[in-house]
Amino acid sequence: MKCIDLILRNGKVYNTFLQRFEEKDIAILEDKFYYLAEQITSLEAREEIDCTGQYIIPGLIDIHMHIESSMTVPKEFSRMVIPHGVTTVVADPHEIANVLGIKGIETFISSETSLDIFYGIPSSVPSTCEVLETTGGSIGIEEVHRLLENPRVMCLGEVMNFKDLVAQEETLIQKIIKVTKEKNRFLPIEGHCPKISGLELAQFIYAGVDADHTQQTPDSIYEKITNGMFLEIQRKSLTKENVEVLINNNFYEYFALVTDDVMADHLKEGHLNEIIKQAIALGLPVEKAIYCSTYTPARRMHLNDRGLIAPGKLADFVILESLEDFKIESVYKRGKKYEGECRSPQVFPEAFYHTVQCKGAELQDFILKTDKTGKVWCRVIQIQPKGTFTKTIKKQLTIREGRIQWEESGLALLAIYERYGKNGNIAYALVDGAITEKGAIATTWAHDHHNLMVMGTSPKDMVLAQQEVLKMQGGYVVTKNEIVRARAVLNVGGIVNDGPLEVLAEDLGAVRQAMRVLGYTHDNEIMSFSTLSLPVSPEIKVTDHGLIDTKTQNLLSLEVEELNEDNC
Amino acid sequence: MKCIDLILRNGKVYNTFLQRFEEKDIAILEDKFYYLAEQITSLEAREEIDCTGQYIIPGLIDIHMHIESSMTVPKEFSRMVIPHGVTTVVADPHEIANVLGIKGIETFISSETSLDIFYGIPSSVPSTCEVLETTGGSIGIEEVHRLLENPRVMCLGEVMNFKDLVAQEETLIQKIIKVTKEKNRFLPIEGHCPKISGLELAQFIYAGVDADHTQQTPDSIYEKITNGMFLEIQRKSLTKENVEVLINNNFYEYFALVTDDVMADHLKEGHLNEIIKQAIALGLPVEKAIYCSTYTPARRMHLNDRGLIAPGKLADFVILESLEDFKIESVYKRGKKYEGECRSPQVFPEAFYHTVQCKGAELQDFILKTDKTGKVWCRVIQIQPKGTFTKTIKKQLTIREGRIQWEESGLALLAIYERYGKNGNIAYALVDGAITEKGAIATTWAHDHHNLMVMGTSPKDMVLAQQEVLKMQGGYVVTKNEIVRARAVLNVGGIVNDGPLEVLAEDLGAVRQAMRVLGYTHDNEIMSFSTLSLPVSPEIKVTDHGLIDTKTQNLLSLEVEELNEDNC
Repeated sequence: MKCIDLILRNGKVYNTFLQRFEEKDIAILEDKFYYLAEQITSLEAREEIDCTGQYIIPGLIDIHMHIESSMTVPKEFSRMVIPHGVTTVVADPHEIANVLGIKGIETFISSETSLDIFYGIPSSVPSTCEVLETTGGSIGIEEVHRLLENPRVMCLGEVMNFKDLVAQEETLIQKIIKVTKEKNRFLPIEGHCPKISGLELAQFIYAGVDADHTQQTPDSIYEKITNGMFLEIQRKSLTKENVEVLINNNFYEYFALVTDDVMADHLKEGHLNEIIKQAIALGLPVEKAIYCSTYTPARRMHLNDRGLIAPGKLADFVILESLEDFKIESVYKRGKKYEGECRSPQVFPEAFYHTVQCKGAELQDFILKTDKTGKVWCRVIQIQPKGTFTKTIKKQLTIREGRIQWEESGLALLAIYERYGKNGNIAYALVDGAITEKGAIATTWAHDHHNLMVMGTSPKDMVLAQQEVLKMQGGYVVTKNEIVRARAVLNVGGIVNDGPLEVLAEDLGAVRQAMRVLGYTHDNEIMSFSTLSLPVSPEIKVTDHGLIDTKTQNLLSLEVEELNEDNC
Repeated sequence: MKCIDLILRNGKVYNTFLQRFEEKDIAILEDKFYYLAEQITSLEAREEIDCTGQYIIPGLIDIHMHIESSMTVPKEFSRMVIPHGVTTVVADPHEIANVLGIKGIETFISSETSLDIFYGIPSSVPSTCEVLETTGGSIGIEEVHRLLENPRVMCLGEVMNFKDLVAQEETLIQKIIKVTKEKNRFLPIEGHCPKISGLELAQFIYAGVDADHTQQTPDSIYEKITNGMFLEIQRKSLTKENVEVLINNNFYEYFALVTDDVMADHLKEGHLNEIIKQAIALGLPVEKAIYCSTYTPARRMHLNDRGLIAPGKLADFVILESLEDFKIESVYKRGKKYEGECRSPQVFPEAFYHTVQCKGAELQDFILKTDKTGKVWCRVIQIQPKGTFTKTIKKQLTIREGRIQWEESGLALLAIYERYGKNGNIAYALVDGAITEKGAIATTWAHDHHNLMVMGTSPKDMVLAQQEVLKMQGGYVVTKNEIVRARAVLNVGGIVNDGPLEVLAEDLGAVRQAMRVLGYTHDNEIMSFSTLSLPVSPEIKVTDHGLIDTKTQNLLSLEVEELNEDNC
């Protein structure tokens, strides 16, 4: 009698093709499922496990996410998410690419992890262009060429720039898509197209991009899927109405559940499993939620060796204690029970720890000089209490001794220091709705260019916060009354931390708390602050080149020349 | 207003994701669909077509088929099948590989055709091994390596040999799968596993093969799909019971309709469109039949640029006059109406026309000498009136002057001449149920090794037929009373004809007719005759090495030593 490695007996096993559970025995040989039957009697196994009453489902697969969003390194990320049932991800490493270019990407890709991490090639680094933001790295044709050779690359990552994508003249993103198709005609190309519909949506898809993971509405789901887009549904798209559209149209083959971004301090609580629970709570049948977080994501990425429990497929699976609350009893990766692992430090090239190359802040940096006298109208970024979109407002500020008296205005001043040692840019913005107390916040986790950003109401606090972040070579610092109140170190590239995630999570929690004490009111303070710098997210943001109207992609002055200018 | 190439107005357009027709306008730019809307008013087009009352469906995609089964060359095949609505195929060129090895395959692959032809790498050439059959070419590790580089290769073609696949020691097919997975871990691997179930089926799939196109039963469909196999359903699997299983289990995502083999003289009548009609006649809803002959086959092969009518996808489509009888009004390939094309001759390397390298037959070749006297029991291949399976029977023949008097036995004699100039083998078999009149049939289209096979009841007719095939350098010849009654030339590699298919079809029709006159009674005489040589199809067949028990893969003697030997 053939001897195999493991038999799981009497579990309720998820059959992908029937989309239901069946009582089956499962035989596993080496890293793959070997045989399933009602009762396996023709094989001997080195180990048997009784799964009576338990549910066995394929390992979860997340095909749209960014490891850097969790501000940690691949090894730590792996250690944290496998216990949540996640066994494969496709990561788009565009944050590390903005800081360290292809070298950053390749260092991530070459990480050895228990979790299977595949990659998308970041297609929009920088998110706009060199004239609008300074980044440490950029991804051009040559880099794409090289990454296409990498066997861990499964797709071209999210294409963002609608204007460039459909431009008449050939743009970089068009060239990148062309090169990709020349090299691998059938590589999935992922997109980012919020609020695009009708003819514009068709143009977006026509250009070769046929997936989207942005925030959806019932209409956008229907329109995008019926026009051939594969949808990656993340938390913010999970509404009752959206789930109804998916159910009523039987769209289960054409979407997957994904996480996109999970902050470090949320990672303890869950990952894709949380999205599944949320989807089920909104009415998605549990069997469909499993299908769309295992089989359809694998198929979208051509990962045809996994995503289901069947002979020959990777024995990645999750044993659930109960189906109702999706309670995980254990997780198996390649046929072996995941028992957790000691954190093995992940070491990066020395240069990765020295990426914050700008001058330390001085008090005089925060003087806004002007030729005008009396009063001046200024453009102001207004933070909203939810989400990452901002609004443009105008506010009249007083001038004294050739200086705009921003400290008296009730606004915060935001300064961005170019930090790659390239041009020494410092750009400024005024921000409404941020900090109310005297203090400052600084970070190098500033989407997507990740320059050193400091925002505050008091120049002295700003100097301190900026200098501390510089000293740490990356991270978050919150100061109040010239004392550091909280900090979180992001020592690798200034955007991720190579230490234990538990410590980082705690530090980030403290940063959040300190931000709240400064008066920052938002449901995700860190994300809100760190996206003030993102020039592809509506409607006014700031880079090291200055204020940007994200729709027109024009640079704007801080001072408004005419009050009616731009209706501002 | 943007000017595009073509707008189709008011057609009933098949939406893949809704699996139903919708009244839509379709805009096409260059070779791709550009935009679909209820009424397109925002675009100008160089051409507009009114499709009122017509149905527009994606071009048909056949992912399991062999061009050589139609005994023609890629260019001719393309010209013949596009009018049937077929716009993409994935061909497994294992016949040309048996004759000409990788050079034959590469010549096929490099053919320029209007039809998009992708390829599978023939995984079993020869079908058994060198000890059992002599072929002109073989496909080993090196060839697989080279073919994996070819951008037109979409899969590893049908893996046939169950024994070798699951053998303990490493076999060639195991090595081929290993090399394939090393090079492209996610390349689909196609299989051929008739009548395998239970643990054996699991072992087959575990070895990496997860598709099957052989004859199915309701049970095999259910078992194979729920164990992760993608099924390719061909004519012989289309039964009412099988269609019911597909419908009742909602298996539409996990199978495709395919043709496998279509003989040259049947190609005029139809191709995959005929299979679709048959499926619909058996109860498969037409919208599902379309789905499973366009979208699911494309997805199985990762051909994500086609198989649906949506922006950015190749504008391959079919306009149907009516849905009920699937009547084709016109076919569009890459946005252009296919108007037919002049036959452009396809020229092959000179050597391809000189592949029949054996001696001409002489009368003495058909003397069966023996040491025995009196009478002798012989093994006989018994042809069945349907299908390609044969049975083994025994028959007692008279011996005179050291010769077995087969001419008086009512049986036909079959001789196979090794024809690659390698060893000069001639092997013999006695055949029951074939020819009743005096005459002979000869061919080089002898699955899969394609040696020169002649079968007859009269030595003189056999000499004539064999010599004529030799002179033609391949084809079929039927002789009766020492006169050639019909012939069909297969001048390229002895298995395909490079002339107009209409002529070949007529010639083949004449061959069929002449075979019937000789008394050959079968629903596909040509296929029946040409598979007497196929050693992987039950139960007794003959190669240039001799008679073979296809189950045990043992060579058998013509004369039975003991009457009870092998229960024969």
